[in-house]
Amino acid sequence: MIYPLTRELFSQFWPTFKAIAQAQQTYAYAADITEAEAYHLWCEIPQLSFAWVEHGEVLGCYYLKANAMGPGDHVCNCGYMVSAAARGKGIARQLCLHSQQQALAAGFSAMQFNCVVSTNEVAVTLWQKLGFAIVGTLPKAYRHSDLGLLDCYVMFKTLHQD
Amino acid sequence: MIYPLTRELFSQFWPTFKAIAQAQQTYAYAADITEAEAYHLWCEIPQLSFAWVEHGEVLGCYYLKANAMGPGDHVCNCGYMVSAAARGKGIARQLCLHSQQQALAAGFSAMQFNCVVSTNEVAVTLWQKLGFAIVGTLPKAYRHSDLGLLDCYVMFKTLHQD
Repeated sequence: MIYPLTRELFSQFWPTFKAIAQAQQTYAYAADITEAEAYHLWCEIPQLSFAWVEHGEVLGCYYLKANAMGPGDHVCNCGYMVSAAARGKGIARQLCLHSQQQALAAGFSAMQFNCVVSTNEVAVTLWQKLGFAIVGTLPKAYRHSDLGLLDCYVMFKTLHQD
Repeated sequence: MIYPLTRELFSQFWPTFKAIAQAQQTYAYAADITEAEAYHLWCEIPQLSFAWVEHGEVLGCYYLKANAMGPGDHVCNCGYMVSAAARGKGIARQLCLHSQQQALAAGFSAMQFNCVVSTNEVAVTLWQKLGFAIVGTLPKAYRHSDLGLLDCYVMFKTLHQD
């Protein structure tokens, strides 16, 4: 079930968020980001934030916000995270589909991901399956903890009611 | 001469900033952005902000900030504005060259522009002359006040001491 991402649910999810930040392999967050900073980025700045909860456990979450202001505010941006133990079960897919519906309902007409690390094949492939295209490549824009400087993709989808 | 962009200099420049926002043709700011919001975006959030001043008049300004956090914080982002009366005099070029030196001095190794409106030929051509490449195209990501939905370019340059 998907619920609004409250402070309590975010706190439950924080160990996963922290592990993802510490890994320095997919998200552009400082390794030592605090829970308060992460909560601000995912639940206070964004317009909407949701949690995927099963048997009382938060297995994933996402945020949705405008990617730009004024004449660019019809394009939204989302971020998704799924706990390590819950990967491969289609939760990221469900979160992304849910976010596209929420984006349309909120009046957005496109969705943009600004920095998909090129080695994150699971994400790149999933977003492509869901209709996102790679519209840009940022050379060596990410310092991967194992692989060093890596390209990132900008991915984009024009949204429409299916 | 280039000076740090103080609150006083920003206030002097505000009529130009306001006119650029109201035009809705180049920057993704709300048409009704306030001076306080603009000051926050250009002088409080950014790491550095500078003004181009001639004969006591602010003719242009720019900000410089990290474009992402953590493993992406070696890439910076800048924005530049020049007053209508002072265009065509090479001020944007001087501001961009200055910003690249400042970026290197601050430890950045690349510079990224996230949303260059594709019809802004003066800007696109200047950035290309200064070594920036179009690395992405965002389809219909900008609502131009005259021309409707327009593509935007993501432009990128790896910085190096010349």
